[in-house]
This record gives sequence, C-alpha cells and structure tokens, in this order.
Amino acid sequence: MSTPLPKIRFRDPQIEMAHGAGGKASRRLVEGLFAPLLFGTSTEPLGDAAHVNLNGTCVAITADSFVVKPLRFPGGSIGELAVNGTVNDLAVSGARAQTLVVTYVLESGLPTEILEAEVRAMAKAAERAGVSIAGGDTKVVEHGKADRMYITTAGIGLPIPGVALSAASVRPGDKVLLSGPIGDHGITILLARGELELEADLCSDTRSVLPLVEALARAVAPGIRWMRDPTRGGVATSLNELARDCGLGVMLSEDKIPIRDTVRGACELLGLDPLHIANEGQFLAIIAAEHADAALEALKGTPGGHEAVIIGEMCEQPAGTVLGATSYGGTRVIDMLVGDPLPRIC
Amino acid sequence: MSTPLPKIRFRDPQIEMAHGAGGKASRRLVEGLFAPLLFGTSTEPLGDAAHVNLNGTCVAITADSFVVKPLRFPGGSIGELAVNGTVNDLAVSGARAQTLVVTYVLESGLPTEILEAEVRAMAKAAERAGVSIAGGDTKVVEHGKADRMYITTAGIGLPIPGVALSAASVRPGDKVLLSGPIGDHGITILLARGELELEADLCSDTRSVLPLVEALARAVAPGIRWMRDPTRGGVATSLNELARDCGLGVMLSEDKIPIRDTVRGACELLGLDPLHIANEGQFLAIIAAEHADAALEALKGTPGGHEAVIIGEMCEQPAGTVLGATSYGGTRVIDMLVGDPLPRIC
Repeated sequence: MSTPLPKIRFRDPQIEMAHGAGGKASRRLVEGLFAPLLFGTSTEPLGDAAHVNLNGTCVAITADSFVVKPLRFPGGSIGELAVNGTVNDLAVSGARAQTLVVTYVLESGLPTEILEAEVRAMAKAAERAGVSIAGGDTKVVEHGKADRMYITTAGIGLPIPGVALSAASVRPGDKVLLSGPIGDHGITILLARGELELEADLCSDTRSVLPLVEALARAVAPGIRWMRDPTRGGVATSLNELARDCGLGVMLSEDKIPIRDTVRGACELLGLDPLHIANEGQFLAIIAAEHADAALEALKGTPGGHEAVIIGEMCEQPAGTVLGATSYGGTRVIDMLVGDPLPRIC
Repeated sequence: MSTPLPKIRFRDPQIEMAHGAGGKASRRLVEGLFAPLLFGTSTEPLGDAAHVNLNGTCVAITADSFVVKPLRFPGGSIGELAVNGTVNDLAVSGARAQTLVVTYVLESGLPTEILEAEVRAMAKAAERAGVSIAGGDTKVVEHGKADRMYITTAGIGLPIPGVALSAASVRPGDKVLLSGPIGDHGITILLARGELELEADLCSDTRSVLPLVEALARAVAPGIRWMRDPTRGGVATSLNELARDCGLGVMLSEDKIPIRDTVRGACELLGLDPLHIANEGQFLAIIAAEHADAALEALKGTPGGHEAVIIGEMCEQPAGTVLGATSYGGTRVIDMLVGDPLPRIC
C-alpha cells in the first residue's frame, strides 16, 4: 500500500538560524526537504496559504509559528503578530480569514501576567480583524526550553470573490504595487533588543492587511495577479520568489520605495538592505497595467493605505531576476536574503 | 467599536508543568483564562475540535503542539504523533481529517538527519491516515531554546455523516466503550527516558483511530453520543470532564478496563493510576444502551479493535463524578489528574 518516499535534495548537515530567516536557506529547506516529502501534490508549497476543496467549498488554510524576541515591542507583541500574521497570509492568498485556532508552548515559570497580556492582545487583534478563535491547545515545557512562549496560529478562510492569484498569471508590463513603507517591523525589533545604540521613534507596522486587500479586490479584482506579504526576507525575497516562479524579471524604481529615515539610517549603520527587512503590515500586489491606476487609488482611499505606491513593473528580461534602478541611472541586481542578520523577528 | 474584554478567573501566579498536563490545572487555565478571552462564542471550548460553518459547509478544525521528549520512542516519534494526534482529535469530534498544515520550531544546530526522520514519519503517518499536508512554516531558534524541535499540526475535516456528538446528549444507562488497553503511550515514554530501572517490551499505542471511529459510525452512528481520545490526563480525566459537562455520573467496572501487565507494574512502582496515563491510539465513546452491543461488535470486527470493551455506564448519581467498582465490591471516586507526574508525553 505504501508508496516509496522520494529522495531529498537538502544537503545542509544541520539546521542554522538562516533556515528560519525566510531567505535562500529557508527556500532550500522547504524545496529540498519539506516539499518533496510532505507536499507531494501541492502545486505552490511556498504560497502563504493553501486552497483546498472541501465538499465543493474552497477553503484556504495556513499556519505559522511565532517566536519573536522580545515578546513585546513598540507597536505590537507576539500575540498580536500571531493573529495578524495568519490573517495576512490568508489575505494575500486571496482569502478572508474566518476562524483561527491557536496553540501555546509555554515555559514553566512564566508569570501569568505575561501570558494574560498576550492572550488579551490576541483577542483584541482577532476582534479588529473580524475573525473568531475557535479553540486551541497548550503545552508546557521546562524552564529554559522555550524562551518564555511560542505561539502557533492556524487559520481557515473563504476566497474573496473574483480574486484568482498565481505567479503563472503574471505578465510583462504588470505593475508592482506596495501598500506602504518597508522595514518598520524588522528595525523596530532590532531596536527593541537594545543591540543598537540608537533611540528612534519607530513602531512595528503589524496590522491586518485584509481591509486593504478587500478594497483592492472591490476595485480591481480581475486585475490582481499575485500578492505576498513580505515578512521574513523582506520585499527583495518575495519579489525574487515571484521572479523565479513566473520566469519574468522585476524592474524596481528604488527611489519610489517608501522607507522611513530611521529605517534607512539603521540599515546603513548595519550594512543591511531595507529590501531584506521584514514587514508585518504591508503587502505586494502585481496588478495588470490597465488596472494599476485604479488599484493605487483604491488603496490610497482606504484607511492605512495612503502611502501605497507603484514601485516597479514586470519585464521579459532578465528572466527570474529582480533589478533596482535609481534616478542616478544605475541599476543593481537585488538578490534574496542570504543568512540571517535579524533572527526571530516573527 | 471595541467591546470590553471580560475579567479572568485564573489566579495561579505563574505557569507550571501541570498547566500542560491535561488535568485539573489545565482545565483551570483553559476555563479561567483562554476561554473567557478567546473563545467567547464557542460553546465547547474544551472539545477536541471546533466545528464551524463556512459558506454552508460544516468544517471541523483543530490544532495541537507536540513537545514529546524523547523525540523517538518504541512504536512512534514526535512526527507520527503530530499527525495522528490531530487526525484523532478530528475523529473523536466526529470528523474525518482531510488536510493538515504543519509548523516546526527547530533549534539551531539540529542535525538534518533528525529533522528528516521526523518529516518522513509525518509523511508516512499522513499516508496511512489518508490525509494530505497542504503547507506549513518553519522557525529556527537559538540552540537551547527549543529542546531540538517542537511540531504543531492543525487540521481540517468534514463531519462523518450521521454522527452528532455532545455531552448534553448523554443519558443515564448509556454505555462507556473503550477501544483498547490503556496507558501504553505514557509508560512507554517514561521507560524511553530511562527514568525507571525497568526493561519492558512495551510500545506506544500511537495510531490513527479514524478507521475504528468510522467503523463505529457505519454500525451505530445515531447511537454515538460523545467521544474523546484520552491523551494527557488519561481515561480518568476525559470521563471526569464528561461527567461535569453532562451533569451525570460515570460508573466504571475497573476489572474490565484492559491494562497490560507492564503498564500496571510500572504504575504500581511509581504510585500512578493507569487511568491517569496518556494514550495516543485509543478512544472513549458513550453509546446509547440499545446500540452498545452492535457498537462493540463493530469495533471488534475492525483491525486494531479486537481489544475493545464496555467498561461502564452512565448513571444519574453521583452527578458530575466518576466512580470505579471492583469485583471485590469496593467502589472509589476516580478524580481528574492533579499535578504532572509524566510531563511532555505528547
């Protein structure tokens, strides 16, 4: 009865922080180990959520574990992130989250007030996102075995009518739409750890992007080709995955990408590229050229969308590559994240 | 817009191992903290899976984290447990698992071969249980922050036709059906840790109980009132929860409860009650009296069900209590698990 399991291509001898960073190493692990063994029949294992057919109803499903450190940071906390992250994964797959289930791995000795604060943060975030929490599970491990708490959320949702997304549907000339400034979350976490001698008035962008995605769908549903929330690995990694998956190039106008001065400054100090920094409340959408103006207008007219911008377009060449052009006339290749300069940001 | 969040009744100052053990402390945490804050509208927050309505389709959903230690043990491993546990939670809620999503929290430095072995174990268990794995997520934390790996699985399923379960439907005279011998899993884990100077030929009972549940449903679907898989906290805890939820008593014939000699011996040595020991491949079903013989026959005629047995019945009094009677004529109150004598068994 049992079918032979496929061989794996993953050759790294052990797991490193980079395998969880969302960049090249993560992709190697997923494509080389998880996908061949687990996702045999799934066509887009790297998508944010899977869409499955249950008795004729299409249901979107996703799950994410959250291990952010510290648990609380300006603008949010692990509990809020755990709700928004799953709502957003469903949203950028073209689905509206309906119900979440949540599991906790808690460390023995965790003060109840810390747990309670995160459970309350989850309840508030769920209410704001319009999603119910239907159940869950709690495990407790010995002190020192979980860094206080890890939270996992799984969510199911229903497709947003008229939205059908795939990398394969992306065409040359399509526009790259970005919902707002990038890098706020990653740099906020970095600063919250006190690893940089820098005081800054910066907050995580953590939020549900569902209202923006729904506004976009109401305006131009058939014009939306593909979406992704550029969390770990940032905008650069998401667009490199797209370029690879659709076989086209991405030409970005780097000057148009909104980056706050604090984020840019911290990145310069650390030698990081803001395009590699994680976001928790922004998304990328590839929009058919004829719908691009209406798409931008729809986002700008929605609360939280006024900083949306078209940052580039898809092109035939160079296939599978992301290029950045500046107003000075230079262009550069923008690669996926390599290594893990900012571990545990979600 | 925001509704005021309810106050919580949970008063324990910090989280202890017992809060993850599935017994009284777990119930206190769920009922006193998680349920009032998160599961406001859910009627049975302590059930194994929630059933939600998605566009007219009833979908069952559940999630569990797995932190078993050691990762591998006679008869199974964390990966197998993570698949079977979620399939079983759906099964005893009256649903057939369709699709799982899986998340890993991995420790930096984990040898790839250990991860690969668990991913392969998951693939095999999923194939055996007839369930697909649609996607997932991986996080990596620093060495020492995750005890090698934690796995979370969430699953969705469809109701098994004709099965409608609730504690409220249980009636005096209903029979308590048990699918097989108890305590194998918990004692296997204990022995695998080498904490006891005991060699024994014992294996975990980890398996999908779905084939047995489906056989039961085919035979006597309308006669099945309630089901539960007695994992953490064991048979005693599951039946105490039932007694409390339905307001009836449970009278067990202790001599009829199948317990292997090794399990009984280890429990005597440690002062544990086998009724508190975790199982990963057994389930309890409350069956209307007139269907009980057919139910037992159906299980006994299904592979893996030959040791099924009726171990007791529901009674008016003592309400909310589980009693055990022996052939010597004595009776005792069988309480929920208190404390956590066997941490991290799943």
